[in-house]
Amino acid sequence: MKPLLRNVLTRVKPTESERETARRVADGVVRLVNRKCAELGVRANAALVGSIARGTWLRDEKDIDVFILFPEHLPREELEREGLRVARAVAGKSGQERYAEHPYVNMRYRGFDVDLVPCYDVRDPSRIKSAVDRTPHHQRYVQERLTDELRDEVLLTKAFMRGTGVYGAELKIQGFSGYLCELLTIHHGSFTNLVRAAAGWKPGTAMGADGKYVEDQELALIFRDQPLVVIDPTDPNRNVAAPVSLRSFATFVRACQDFLSGPDEKFFFPRRIRPMTNAEIARALKARGTRLILLAFRNPGLVPDVLYPQLRKTERAMIQRLGREGYQVIRSDVWANSMCVVLLELSLWRLPSVRTRLGPPVTFPGGDFIREHMSSEERLAGPFVDDAGRLVFELRRERTSAEECVRSAVQDSRSLGRNIAEAIRKGGRLLNERSMGGLLRDRGFRMFVSEYLQRCLPWYR
Amino acid sequence: MKPLLRNVLTRVKPTESERETARRVADGVVRLVNRKCAELGVRANAALVGSIARGTWLRDEKDIDVFILFPEHLPREELEREGLRVARAVAGKSGQERYAEHPYVNMRYRGFDVDLVPCYDVRDPSRIKSAVDRTPHHQRYVQERLTDELRDEVLLTKAFMRGTGVYGAELKIQGFSGYLCELLTIHHGSFTNLVRAAAGWKPGTAMGADGKYVEDQELALIFRDQPLVVIDPTDPNRNVAAPVSLRSFATFVRACQDFLSGPDEKFFFPRRIRPMTNAEIARALKARGTRLILLAFRNPGLVPDVLYPQLRKTERAMIQRLGREGYQVIRSDVWANSMCVVLLELSLWRLPSVRTRLGPPVTFPGGDFIREHMSSEERLAGPFVDDAGRLVFELRRERTSAEECVRSAVQDSRSLGRNIAEAIRKGGRLLNERSMGGLLRDRGFRMFVSEYLQRCLPWYR
Repeated sequence: MKPLLRNVLTRVKPTESERETARRVADGVVRLVNRKCAELGVRANAALVGSIARGTWLRDEKDIDVFILFPEHLPREELEREGLRVARAVAGKSGQERYAEHPYVNMRYRGFDVDLVPCYDVRDPSRIKSAVDRTPHHQRYVQERLTDELRDEVLLTKAFMRGTGVYGAELKIQGFSGYLCELLTIHHGSFTNLVRAAAGWKPGTAMGADGKYVEDQELALIFRDQPLVVIDPTDPNRNVAAPVSLRSFATFVRACQDFLSGPDEKFFFPRRIRPMTNAEIARALKARGTRLILLAFRNPGLVPDVLYPQLRKTERAMIQRLGREGYQVIRSDVWANSMCVVLLELSLWRLPSVRTRLGPPVTFPGGDFIREHMSSEERLAGPFVDDAGRLVFELRRERTSAEECVRSAVQDSRSLGRNIAEAIRKGGRLLNERSMGGLLRDRGFRMFVSEYLQRCLPWYR
Repeated sequence: MKPLLRNVLTRVKPTESERETARRVADGVVRLVNRKCAELGVRANAALVGSIARGTWLRDEKDIDVFILFPEHLPREELEREGLRVARAVAGKSGQERYAEHPYVNMRYRGFDVDLVPCYDVRDPSRIKSAVDRTPHHQRYVQERLTDELRDEVLLTKAFMRGTGVYGAELKIQGFSGYLCELLTIHHGSFTNLVRAAAGWKPGTAMGADGKYVEDQELALIFRDQPLVVIDPTDPNRNVAAPVSLRSFATFVRACQDFLSGPDEKFFFPRRIRPMTNAEIARALKARGTRLILLAFRNPGLVPDVLYPQLRKTERAMIQRLGREGYQVIRSDVWANSMCVVLLELSLWRLPSVRTRLGPPVTFPGGDFIREHMSSEERLAGPFVDDAGRLVFELRRERTSAEECVRSAVQDSRSLGRNIAEAIRKGGRLLNERSMGGLLRDRGFRMFVSEYLQRCLPWYR
């Protein structure tokens, strides 16, 4: 396995000159921020954090995170206002304001993607005021423990996570964050040790702040329904693996099992998916024999971490409603860039006009049930008694197509994501596999559909 | 209620002259049997049993039951041989041999339907050799308790059972036998008392040999899964209500409840169903939006009590198989005269070509599952991991229509009734709503379909 991993490392580890460049650019940003603070009379100072600061960045991950640290006692509104003032001055016109727990600014700078994030400089990490305040502490913890050798192991872990599709804590992915990759590698001492251990993980696996596996069930009880618990060494109340979904967890465990029984570069560099042509998409859909319903609307301008939970909520609401009315969704997914799409693939999309309405068993009075339906316009047959002794009516069904069902479900804005309800009202459309041609002109959407139709764990492609 | 019941009685009670005729014909049959016994040197004698013997027959029920009683010690084969010899001699060419627990002969005789049934003359009814040996004991028990007034009440009970569709212990109906109607009326003292009591029956209701309700659960435990228990006064080990299905039980209880809240002649004389025209049938099916599958084959010449259980078994097997493959049967029924039909009405009769195959959860090894399907011709997508952490493949489905599924199920003769498997092999056909025109030329089948499509408790017609 050694030569394999050496090869992988050669491909994912930045060269000396790449690291030199990154360092120079990052230092430049830090100096720029500090200068602007001085110019604007703001009492704050910049700190480089994240994988570039720690030397654990993958070659093509060109993200620079610079935090602007404010004194602990500053009121929050002031921090946000002053922080943005500095960040905007640094970024100039190219800056884009974004919003996580509080606002920050993103900019492109000399080929790098730079985040300028205002936060509090909190000494005691258990008393932080906002999630980002933890980052400088993570920085310190990791920095103190990383040797050059361990840095290489972290790169292997990250590359493996990325290759198997579980890298990233953002809500679109619900996978393993960079910090979690670092902690797991540090705790196990090497990438290979981590893989050997993870191949045997069960949902509920827990690691304490000291990096040791916890055998008792206490942590699993506290962090209920979280498949993986890795206690943050800088804050024992926090599970660094909280964003990891059961799907990502199981995918990673399967990847480890499969990698051990057949180590291969494809776990790190899976075969890319080729975008399918319209004809290929049509052929694949025909082979499946299903129907697509696509709920498409303009992106209401939300950051992914706010948008995706709302898209997933909408997706779940549609699936539940369809199921309740008797339709069957075989698979579904969501997609977004400037447009948003909730894709529902139906294995049962038409229902007969007749539906069965069961009444009470013989031990309960049936008078009301019979009176209710006897004179109904919808009655096709009944009342009669079934083999189980229950009263039965057969009634005309109101809606007989899944599309009508989705159309009606969309009216019920409570079941949708908050901002999505409005976006749909402003111009949502219901498309199907024949009318999605317009969307397919978007290369991103075409890739999404291509991946959907050929869905497969990356290392089996 | 009194005048209503008097009116009903006028319509269902045989007139004096009708009773005179019946008595004369029945006595004639008895004399004929005794004369043939003498002529053939057979040591047996005839006895008139059943409702004509007890004066509890409905006006249009023209059935005469004559039993040929043989001494207890006679070997069974001899009884069957000698019994048939006598019966054949009596019936002549018009006789038709039939088979229940042992063979008997049926004939038309002066406008009556006559059964000539050989049986043992067993003194102690708890030591009978065959079910028919009980009949003479029932005869005696009922005869001793019936007054003229009670006879009228029995007629009302029978007419009510017939009108509400639950009269008859045969396996086609699974309802209340004539003897059970007599017992229930005797036990309650009148038709009206019976109806008042039955309106409150729950499944598991039990009556002892003395006709009193049994409150403890003992009888319900012995006669498990039988909705109604009425102990035979001539044999405490036998439940006279054993043939009553939960459906018939619940129908009768509902009828009693509804009759009490609105007494009406329609409970005794429901509106008749008019046979629907082809156009009406087509319209009704279109309104339901379902598909019919009809498994049709020639009646293998079985008596109804043997045929119907086999038809029901076949029906159940088809429903189970269809359900297992993902199709949905909304309702079904069976029909027979010279042809037999298992009718399946499908609310879901087409499935997409893709089907989901779930693999093990993450806590189990997935290697075998993946190897099995990875190189399969049927693979459309997968392996991937679902939200619950399980491995998933999407495979091509072999059969995508319910008709193919039934066609294949019919091959598996174990799931069919024994004689039905052969009848189907010899020439079964699979029809649907468009190809059933030939069958509809049979008036009986047309009535069956008409009743099926307008199914309704008779008193709600």
